[in-house]
Amino acid sequence: MTVAALSEAELLARIFPRLEMGGTHGSATLLGPGDDAAIVSAPDGRAVISIDTQVQDQDFRLQWPNGYRTTGFDVGWKAAAQNLSDINAMGGVAMSLVVSLTLPPETPVSWVADLADGLTAGIRELGATDCSVAGGDLGRGREISVTVAVLGSLAGGTAVLRSGARAGDVVALAGTVGRAAAGLALLESENAVQSLAPAQRALLELQCRPRPPLSAGPLAMAVGATAMLDISDGLVRDGGRLAAASGVVLDLDPAALNPLAEALRPASDLLGADPMAWVLGGGEDHGLLATFPAGVQLPAGFTAIGSVQAPESSTPPGVTIAGHAAGTGGWDHFAD
Amino acid sequence: MTVAALSEAELLARIFPRLEMGGTHGSATLLGPGDDAAIVSAPDGRAVISIDTQVQDQDFRLQWPNGYRTTGFDVGWKAAAQNLSDINAMGGVAMSLVVSLTLPPETPVSWVADLADGLTAGIRELGATDCSVAGGDLGRGREISVTVAVLGSLAGGTAVLRSGARAGDVVALAGTVGRAAAGLALLESENAVQSLAPAQRALLELQCRPRPPLSAGPLAMAVGATAMLDISDGLVRDGGRLAAASGVVLDLDPAALNPLAEALRPASDLLGADPMAWVLGGGEDHGLLATFPAGVQLPAGFTAIGSVQAPESSTPPGVTIAGHAAGTGGWDHFAD
Repeated sequence: MTVAALSEAELLARIFPRLEMGGTHGSATLLGPGDDAAIVSAPDGRAVISIDTQVQDQDFRLQWPNGYRTTGFDVGWKAAAQNLSDINAMGGVAMSLVVSLTLPPETPVSWVADLADGLTAGIRELGATDCSVAGGDLGRGREISVTVAVLGSLAGGTAVLRSGARAGDVVALAGTVGRAAAGLALLESENAVQSLAPAQRALLELQCRPRPPLSAGPLAMAVGATAMLDISDGLVRDGGRLAAASGVVLDLDPAALNPLAEALRPASDLLGADPMAWVLGGGEDHGLLATFPAGVQLPAGFTAIGSVQAPESSTPPGVTIAGHAAGTGGWDHFAD
Repeated sequence: MTVAALSEAELLARIFPRLEMGGTHGSATLLGPGDDAAIVSAPDGRAVISIDTQVQDQDFRLQWPNGYRTTGFDVGWKAAAQNLSDINAMGGVAMSLVVSLTLPPETPVSWVADLADGLTAGIRELGATDCSVAGGDLGRGREISVTVAVLGSLAGGTAVLRSGARAGDVVALAGTVGRAAAGLALLESENAVQSLAPAQRALLELQCRPRPPLSAGPLAMAVGATAMLDISDGLVRDGGRLAAASGVVLDLDPAALNPLAEALRPASDLLGADPMAWVLGGGEDHGLLATFPAGVQLPAGFTAIGSVQAPESSTPPGVTIAGHAAGTGGWDHFAD
């Protein structure tokens, strides 16, 4: 059955029970779906908000060259993960999601139900225990598009911006980097998904269902991280944004980067690729890049990968590796 | 020039100045665009949130049968208006918008700049003086899609839900009804836009740039409105939702409805249409339908159009007109 066979109310009736609303939802939701708007608790008088869209054939393919079919569960999980990560990257805790779904009439109802399950599972399994879906919007289009806006709380703390890194700080990473890019390369290869070894399959699955380290952001805020962002467009590109906002140089340590690349060998060996390109240029793992004052004990989950240096005329704000300018990687939506 | 010629950063640089951020933006925005998320004030510890999407060829056509070309300004204005209306319908005041734009590569940059101007103009001219655009997301797609999530404040008051109407209450309307539907009928007709009289053109423009009565929602809350929603899908359909949520019958007075229909004569006479069908079934003016305790002086902008009655076995919760069941109108996204 496709969504064209159902009224909006009938489709919502299939989705709502899967979102665990109405009784068991997070306590931050004061009023859930069904009225003109939802009401969410903002206990410290501030709300952190972000919005992200995934579009079919841009952010995911329903069927990849290697044969993998993206499930609704994958898309729902990733929509949750991307947005939860934006709150994490400010040092906050997610309280609520609102979801707008644009669906072609031929979309199977089961795919949409699976998307709702993926949203719920992403919220739960990534540990956003205060968070639930508070509302949404449904409409038709020629391609599937899923937009999520997320509301978070800073719980009385000071948001960790991109602009606070200072010379002498330690650069640290939480979560993984490059794995989603390795998974993307596998999806785009001719290596049939059925033929992949478990370690390769795990990389593919991290592309489809990323696992941002949601406990790390608030921990970083608590110990006084000076700057932070999530790596959605690549270590060098996002690191460059943090460096530019702070007016500093992030100098990365090759000895810290090499193990990150080694973890990608299951894919790079199969594809004859350079795993360091995925470490430096790959986004979508949604790990956190943060800077901490020297001497601070790094919170659980963070590993030092470099140091912050003052810019010089020969070294403008940006990312270097052992003092040499790092090549840019990552992805720009419009430039080719 | 199309958006394909610009990087994401270059396109944002064309949009941001038109959103009046960075200095002159609303005081509710504590941290605007440029970081992982925005931070918005939530002074009474609660945030009201809603989300709405407009998709090309579903919610608007770039060119209509009567020759009118939808401008970016129209789409930006309407995105603001729809979302601001959802906060209004709770009795709240909008504090902040976040915007996700999906754009085909061939979209003219000027169209996108115009959309940003329309967002800003909608916020200002509709009177949402505390509100500004706090952040967003940009991406590619095959069709233009504009999603806005809005954050609002209840300013310490009690949200006006759909479920509080009680027998004996007065039913009242603020803003217009049926005009956007009359405008839609003109757009979909063969009557060239250049040939329209000013009164006809005004109806067309209300479809493209709706004018929800943003002062009316908080005023209704202040005097103790028992239930309220905005009419986005039609008076009978949305009235039916309020009636169902409250378990009551909304009985509308034909003498109050007739003048609403008369206002649509410039279009109905031209098209040979029944203007009452637009009054009962037309959405998108985003007027407010509210119920008030009998004896309360209606706030400025509201006109009584009926009364709330207890349901009976012969008259289940729903909308009646002078005691007779009203025909449903409005629009369902998936049902045909």
